[in-house]
Amino acid sequence: MKQLNEQAIEDIAMGAAVLGTGGGGDPFIGKMMALEAVKKYGPVSVVTVDELEDQAQVVPVCMIGAPTVMAEKIPSMEQVTAAIECLEQEKGQAVDAVMPIEIGGVNSLIPIVAAAKKGIPVLDADAMGRAFPESQMVTFHLEGYLPGSVTLADEKGNVTLLRPIDGAWSERLARAITVEMGGSASMCDYWLSGADVKRAVIPGTLHTVEKIGRIIREAHGKMENPVRNILRELQGYELFTGKVVHIERSIDGGFTRGKAAIEGTDRDRSKVMNLYFQNEHLLAEEDGKLRAVPPDLIAVLDEETGYPVTTENIRYGARVTVVAFPAHLKWRTEVGLETAGPRYFGYDCDYIPVEKLCKGGKAE
Amino acid sequence: MKQLNEQAIEDIAMGAAVLGTGGGGDPFIGKMMALEAVKKYGPVSVVTVDELEDQAQVVPVCMIGAPTVMAEKIPSMEQVTAAIECLEQEKGQAVDAVMPIEIGGVNSLIPIVAAAKKGIPVLDADAMGRAFPESQMVTFHLEGYLPGSVTLADEKGNVTLLRPIDGAWSERLARAITVEMGGSASMCDYWLSGADVKRAVIPGTLHTVEKIGRIIREAHGKMENPVRNILRELQGYELFTGKVVHIERSIDGGFTRGKAAIEGTDRDRSKVMNLYFQNEHLLAEEDGKLRAVPPDLIAVLDEETGYPVTTENIRYGARVTVVAFPAHLKWRTEVGLETAGPRYFGYDCDYIPVEKLCKGGKAE
Repeated sequence: MKQLNEQAIEDIAMGAAVLGTGGGGDPFIGKMMALEAVKKYGPVSVVTVDELEDQAQVVPVCMIGAPTVMAEKIPSMEQVTAAIECLEQEKGQAVDAVMPIEIGGVNSLIPIVAAAKKGIPVLDADAMGRAFPESQMVTFHLEGYLPGSVTLADEKGNVTLLRPIDGAWSERLARAITVEMGGSASMCDYWLSGADVKRAVIPGTLHTVEKIGRIIREAHGKMENPVRNILRELQGYELFTGKVVHIERSIDGGFTRGKAAIEGTDRDRSKVMNLYFQNEHLLAEEDGKLRAVPPDLIAVLDEETGYPVTTENIRYGARVTVVAFPAHLKWRTEVGLETAGPRYFGYDCDYIPVEKLCKGGKAE
Repeated sequence: MKQLNEQAIEDIAMGAAVLGTGGGGDPFIGKMMALEAVKKYGPVSVVTVDELEDQAQVVPVCMIGAPTVMAEKIPSMEQVTAAIECLEQEKGQAVDAVMPIEIGGVNSLIPIVAAAKKGIPVLDADAMGRAFPESQMVTFHLEGYLPGSVTLADEKGNVTLLRPIDGAWSERLARAITVEMGGSASMCDYWLSGADVKRAVIPGTLHTVEKIGRIIREAHGKMENPVRNILRELQGYELFTGKVVHIERSIDGGFTRGKAAIEGTDRDRSKVMNLYFQNEHLLAEEDGKLRAVPPDLIAVLDEETGYPVTTENIRYGARVTVVAFPAHLKWRTEVGLETAGPRYFGYDCDYIPVEKLCKGGKAE
């Protein structure tokens, strides 16, 4: 089993900000927590999907809530494990491994915190292949799994257990508790056997974000621009390059919603791209024409360094390159698009794959 | 042990609407549920505080939420016992008796439903001596007890367990879940031993509401007005007689809030009484002068029949007699007034006992 050292945690945090550009909170908060946990409790083992025993008990652990809040109300290590332990008590057994529910944002790191503190491995897989803003947007749901009992904990010590009748009620009740807990909480749901996990997850994604992070770090060392290598690694497309000229943001029902406008430079001069977000960047429009829609992933990178710019950190005047990556095929099914396609998010358009929207464009 | 028959349930429901004029929902919904439960599962035994064993395990069970909602979304028997059973699981033991958390409104009847379905007795006592709109307004809180783990269940089958750090968080989290569950939910908290229950409750109140209900029923049989006998039984005061000329009601944060204006008739001709409510009638003002403030109890009775008129059922044009009863002495302490005095509810006045406000008035 591979062990995660401090360098690996740094790389994961960097890569996680590319796949989750806002996603469940700033990954740098998760990085600080994971580094502290590994320092205090020792390194964390990574188990691959192939290595996982069918009868193992696995639980995803994550933060739920508005990234804007999480940046000011840093989660505690204790609240992360409190959510797991409440669910262990509900199940009457101990968990053998934790996993990220989403590989973007802070939620790539939170399971590492839990794994260090509990002395168990973290699984190299997730249930989104990116970050999504709502808790039912997971491949477990696409497989027809129910979230089962859900636990939530806050940094003050409040713990709650939900036994919702279905996924929609899980989301509603968890969101209400999260808002009341001050806008963010740690959460566990989808307690699963190893056999069920293998059927549903997107494997290898913890390794993927680590690789993306490494590409960015190594490019930085050589004063190179990593964007081309990132696009190659993730089969992505460059959408637009320009300067951020407008940002709107509001916290609404536990989400950070907003819009960013980017004025084109270089090849994109005299064009404007609008990005719409709900925690994550969701839809990119160039002069009124669609360039990328969910579930395909939109990321914003610093034009020079390739450093990911989260929806939280995007600032007026920033010079950025907007890129897009095709969603995992699990998301391009009928149920996948019902769950996380453009219409679910309230956009009046059908799903068109980014490969098609960028045909003849700047694809790598 | 006394057994509750159908007549007793009818009387309790009637009396409960006098002591809780809105309180945790219309008691007639509770009556229907209790009658159905007794019909299906057999009569319910009543245990007095003196009869209760010190080592018995007792839990209050109630409905939380806006009465307006409860009238349209009738609770199920299953949701009542689901809340109890989730807390039994949390405690790892079975409950020996249930009790009303408040003796006003639907919550006098809900424990009878639970007792019938579970085949256990109901305790002749409560933790308010009336109805109050918020869950921390209980004599348990005045004794310094913490609510401990809290369970909530809805009619759809959703169940939640809260482990709040204190009473204020218990109220906040429970209220948020209740709103999300559609505005009403069944709830258990304050799981206590018989010894702790005895120290804190207001004893004999189930019997009291049954007596009030009997007074009204018997007066009705003899075509008499029961108001004088009700006032005598509860050492109460007649405040005002008149016609309802204005009603405002809104559902806000899980509560029904509003105001009723009554134009005086007979002895009160050319005067106006304003009643302010938050689920319960809370404050009575006559031409700008205070007549009764919380924690003393204000009730509105039909001028002719003495039938209680809940905050839900009060209608334009109704001819009513407004009465007030002194709060139990536990509520007139410093901590009692901090918890449920006028300032807690946002009224800018000190507590003055109803006996004093009605001095030289129409006291019985």
